[in-house]
Amino acid sequence: MIVVLRPGASPEEKQNLIAAFEGLGLRVDVSEGERQTVLGLVGDTSSLDEATISSLGAVASVTRVREPFLRCSRRQHPDSAIVQVGPAQIGGGRFVMIAGPCSVENEEQILAVARAVKAAGADLLRGGAFKPRTSPYAFPGLGKKGLELLKLARAETGLPIVSEIMSCEQLPLFEDVDLLQVGARNMQNYELLRELGRIDRPILLKRGLSATLRELLMSAEHIMAGGNERVILCERGIRTFSDYARNTLDLAAVPELHELTQLPVIVDPSHATGRRALVGPMALSAAACGADGLMIEVHNEPSKALSDAAQALDCEEFAALARRVAEVREAAQP
Amino acid sequence: MIVVLRPGASPEEKQNLIAAFEGLGLRVDVSEGERQTVLGLVGDTSSLDEATISSLGAVASVTRVREPFLRCSRRQHPDSAIVQVGPAQIGGGRFVMIAGPCSVENEEQILAVARAVKAAGADLLRGGAFKPRTSPYAFPGLGKKGLELLKLARAETGLPIVSEIMSCEQLPLFEDVDLLQVGARNMQNYELLRELGRIDRPILLKRGLSATLRELLMSAEHIMAGGNERVILCERGIRTFSDYARNTLDLAAVPELHELTQLPVIVDPSHATGRRALVGPMALSAAACGADGLMIEVHNEPSKALSDAAQALDCEEFAALARRVAEVREAAQP
Amino acid sequence: MIVVLRPGASPEEKQNLIAAFEGLGLRVDVSEGERQTVLGLVGDTSSLDEATISSLGAVASVTRVREPFLRCSRRQHPDSAIVQVGPAQIGGGRFVMIAGPCSVENEEQILAVARAVKAAGADLLRGGAFKPRTSPYAFPGLGKKGLELLKLARAETGLPIVSEIMSCEQLPLFEDVDLLQVGARNMQNYELLRELGRIDRPILLKRGLSATLRELLMSAEHIMAGGNERVILCERGIRTFSDYARNTLDLAAVPELHELTQLPVIVDPSHATGRRALVGPMALSAAACGADGLMIEVHNEPSKALSDAAQALDCEEFAALARRVAEVREAAQP
Amino acid sequence: MIVVLRPGASPEEKQNLIAAFEGLGLRVDVSEGERQTVLGLVGDTSSLDEATISSLGAVASVTRVREPFLRCSRRQHPDSAIVQVGPAQIGGGRFVMIAGPCSVENEEQILAVARAVKAAGADLLRGGAFKPRTSPYAFPGLGKKGLELLKLARAETGLPIVSEIMSCEQLPLFEDVDLLQVGARNMQNYELLRELGRIDRPILLKRGLSATLRELLMSAEHIMAGGNERVILCERGIRTFSDYARNTLDLAAVPELHELTQLPVIVDPSHATGRRALVGPMALSAAACGADGLMIEVHNEPSKALSDAAQALDCEEFAALARRVAEVREAAQP
Repeated sequence: MIVVLRPGASPEEKQNLIAAFEGLGLRVDVSEGERQTVLGLVGDTSSLDEATISSLGAVASVTRVREPFLRCSRRQHPDSAIVQVGPAQIGGGRFVMIAGPCSVENEEQILAVARAVKAAGADLLRGGAFKPRTSPYAFPGLGKKGLELLKLARAETGLPIVSEIMSCEQLPLFEDVDLLQVGARNMQNYELLRELGRIDRPILLKRGLSATLRELLMSAEHIMAGGNERVILCERGIRTFSDYARNTLDLAAVPELHELTQLPVIVDPSHATGRRALVGPMALSAAACGADGLMIEVHNEPSKALSDAAQALDCEEFAALARRVAEVREAAQP
Repeated sequence: MIVVLRPGASPEEKQNLIAAFEGLGLRVDVSEGERQTVLGLVGDTSSLDEATISSLGAVASVTRVREPFLRCSRRQHPDSAIVQVGPAQIGGGRFVMIAGPCSVENEEQILAVARAVKAAGADLLRGGAFKPRTSPYAFPGLGKKGLELLKLARAETGLPIVSEIMSCEQLPLFEDVDLLQVGARNMQNYELLRELGRIDRPILLKRGLSATLRELLMSAEHIMAGGNERVILCERGIRTFSDYARNTLDLAAVPELHELTQLPVIVDPSHATGRRALVGPMALSAAACGADGLMIEVHNEPSKALSDAAQALDCEEFAALARRVAEVREAAQP
Repeated sequence: MIVVLRPGASPEEKQNLIAAFEGLGLRVDVSEGERQTVLGLVGDTSSLDEATISSLGAVASVTRVREPFLRCSRRQHPDSAIVQVGPAQIGGGRFVMIAGPCSVENEEQILAVARAVKAAGADLLRGGAFKPRTSPYAFPGLGKKGLELLKLARAETGLPIVSEIMSCEQLPLFEDVDLLQVGARNMQNYELLRELGRIDRPILLKRGLSATLRELLMSAEHIMAGGNERVILCERGIRTFSDYARNTLDLAAVPELHELTQLPVIVDPSHATGRRALVGPMALSAAACGADGLMIEVHNEPSKALSDAAQALDCEEFAALARRVAEVREAAQP
Repeated sequence: MIVVLRPGASPEEKQNLIAAFEGLGLRVDVSEGERQTVLGLVGDTSSLDEATISSLGAVASVTRVREPFLRCSRRQHPDSAIVQVGPAQIGGGRFVMIAGPCSVENEEQILAVARAVKAAGADLLRGGAFKPRTSPYAFPGLGKKGLELLKLARAETGLPIVSEIMSCEQLPLFEDVDLLQVGARNMQNYELLRELGRIDRPILLKRGLSATLRELLMSAEHIMAGGNERVILCERGIRTFSDYARNTLDLAAVPELHELTQLPVIVDPSHATGRRALVGPMALSAAACGADGLMIEVHNEPSKALSDAAQALDCEEFAALARRVAEVREAAQP
């Protein structure tokens, strides 16, 4: 980490600062220029907070030479990680198509969707059992029963299943779920992340609505620090002033994350846009810029399902889209 | 809730929609205008999601006549709520000054700060024991020991104490803490909110970095739905493009929240700006627009404490600010 | 336009409001429901401001049945517009590749780039002559001389040229420029837009950094209202909290604009991201979601040019990218 | 300017970079640390663009030691500027209250408002004659006639007048206007700014909806570089995700601008919030944090004026607010 001091910093301020860094076990290289002093911090700076240091009175700027994340840094891990989820592989050129309804509603629905997306080439089945709902009065999902229905659909189709976990207490219920999803609202629920770092199951970590890429990676690092390195990242839209869609899909995050980390990066165009007409185009765009997978809401009868109508594709639409995605992926190969 | 249909909506689409709403137990008043159809939904619409309905193909717009929050709605509760925290009262004209260090560091520090802020007129002592840290390698706070030191400071000064709780598992440790803070990152950790709704202790709920006011109120509703109505809201800055301070303090939220809800609203200018020079002016601004309290970081030796230096006032600065805040509050009275 | 009144609106407020609308020459259809009153405004509402009306005390919500834009509305003009720029056609399935340096520097540079991008299949040559510079002390571009050099490059390669115009006074200098670009900073410079509406030349209108799609379309309408209907829209990134790239490319705007307007929509991934490594992936994504063209910065020696190094491709990179873009476009066809 | 190179930068990259800076007439101090190289650029760096330099491959970070603005930098001009507008003085402790209608409508209206705000203690009269309207079909203001009516009101009350200028062509019409306002949409209309730098009249420069403080100051610098140093800055809200008010008033910008520049800073709570109920509280907040003035919309009959109803105070409300503002200002003095 390189700390540039303000031109007017007093000798006393310099000494205080150097002492503070040395007190943290770091070695400090001091370069005195004609008009400025630069401190090079050598040692483990991963626990230092840049924002705090850069706002100290004597400090003009702070630059990290090494990123604060280690386990998910591509500099440390040049080879792309491949995460195994049941028979499916994600990352390093292996593309995954995850599809299914927003919420598991009943046996008929989940089986119908599971069969349809399997036939269309999906690799994983998604479905919400525990739903984070803005209103405490809204239906919170089928809960444990929803997970059972997902397993039934898995038994019938062979598709591994993914569902959202909302707290540490739910962990026992998710014992037999193939991929555990952390939702955007919980991206910085560090207690949950820490628990997930201790289990032996792959985690799908969604970017928070106002999270920077560095914050997303630090949340991945929270999981990996516990020993669980099977983390998949998911871009699902950020909150901006733009008002025509639910969120703003930040697609350039895909190539940027590929540069920063070895972890696979998938895209959820359904939640990002919230509108069916935009899901297909954004799925193709995600495939074109190198995403390692897609997560798409599919419902067998979207027009009947109030909670799905806005953004879910029907099974035929999904099948047609899956074919185009495959073609775009191939065309986009360098 | 009023649903305006698109001009070209087919009779079939209308019927499907009406049937769907009736299926949810609502009565539907249909007004057929010359060029448009309007549905008035009568009944309990608090569980309906506007965004979902408004994105249905046949729907042009959705308007809530009643807000989706009930227990924290000023329409339902015209009198301002007064929340008792130990001997202190917050809301309905009772202003509260909360002060203390970002983190509890050791006995000497917390006692020195507690005595100083007490002398300067503070009503509550704040101090972090469990710290949400972006990096898994950063010091996570003193934990249980930090809470013990806070209680020691309370014993000596009589100031009630407030500290952040990060998960349901920590609840037993907070049994004797006067005011439990939910941090911005956990504003939509619904499992935690639900647990806090079941206890008999006041809750300080901070607005998330990208939360709308409605989302903040719905999170308060999650707590109150469980029976715990002692909720205090806190504006602490939102994330925007503006880059000169850590966040953008959204002060107009104070009068707006006072219109929407009976709950007290306090302001945290320290975290909102992240810079000592901005804390004082924003504290005065918050007092001028009618905030019910302030939460300010104070450290006995800010220049020595790396984690506090940027935004903490020293004890003298706090005392001087507290006097000016009192004068501005009085001047701003209508 | 449909105006839903608040439940408690008084008869007097209703009458005032109806009188106000009638005073603007509109007919008002009143539907009195059991719990709400709805006003349907019939006539030309394109000059009404929704935000103003919706914030009136008696009004609960305002819904436009007809958009406020007429000349650029796809509802009024279902067939995609095709804009002719010299021999090139843009829109309605005709894809255009615009390439060239950020700034015209000298004859050697612009000729070298023009030849290279022509060889790689570009349809238009871009180059800045008048540069909007944040600093008044920065080099403002070659001005008139830069336009002359662009014409020289056109004479040699046959490529039509596009350059940014910054004020009405510059119009005479742009007489022989094929496509006039309005930059993001001037998207709401209505005096400039009005003048451009009176000339017979196609206009490339870039989205402002914080403009909604509706505001972008209203700016197009300002040009078209003067009689000049040859407008091309350009998505070039919006300003958000996200900090890893210069701006956030809002790609879902492409399919959304295609739904709202008949005008062609192109994408500028160079300015949107500001980083060379992200330009290629975002160009492919734009092609995949149906953009009608791309605008890409290309320099013959990016590493030597301080102002171009960050985001300009070199000529070989551009040629390789152009091939992949063509393949992705084909694969993405429905 | 201090440029920190990336650890892996090659000797060739270093040499290229140094040569490029020297080619711009700068001296380059090179400090070679153990793990990093730091370049100190000495000379006039005000024309360099940090974003461009920091995105060069070999560069890790860029820090300005001197800001890119000179004429509006407090470091260069420690004493607060006082701008004279007719008999009124703004800045350096002189507070100014600017009031009047959004648009000049007719003689009766502007005279009534002018008399009322004069009686309530206003120092300047505002009124729009040329209105930037999103729709080309909306009423664009009374134009020249509006300016005449403002002058009539000035003749009667003695209040200096302020109105918005939208293009260089309008300059002759504004010859006798006391304070020329540049609207948010034109904050980066550099051609207009340059012309205003050549005249001898004070300028009120409003912050753009998505402008950083540095960009605002650079726009002031554009005016001042021409010789006109009488610039007043105005914070009027920024565009964010927050949706309860028209914009988000960024009040911490007031103390921050006071630190960065000697120029006066006023606040427009009417446009920032767009809602009458929020104008008063935000006016008090602005007074509390040290703003040098306020600009408030006042109408003699707000309920009758469609375009003013939402945010304009009536004359009595303004008079009451003006009294409270004066009291808060006094209480907030250190």
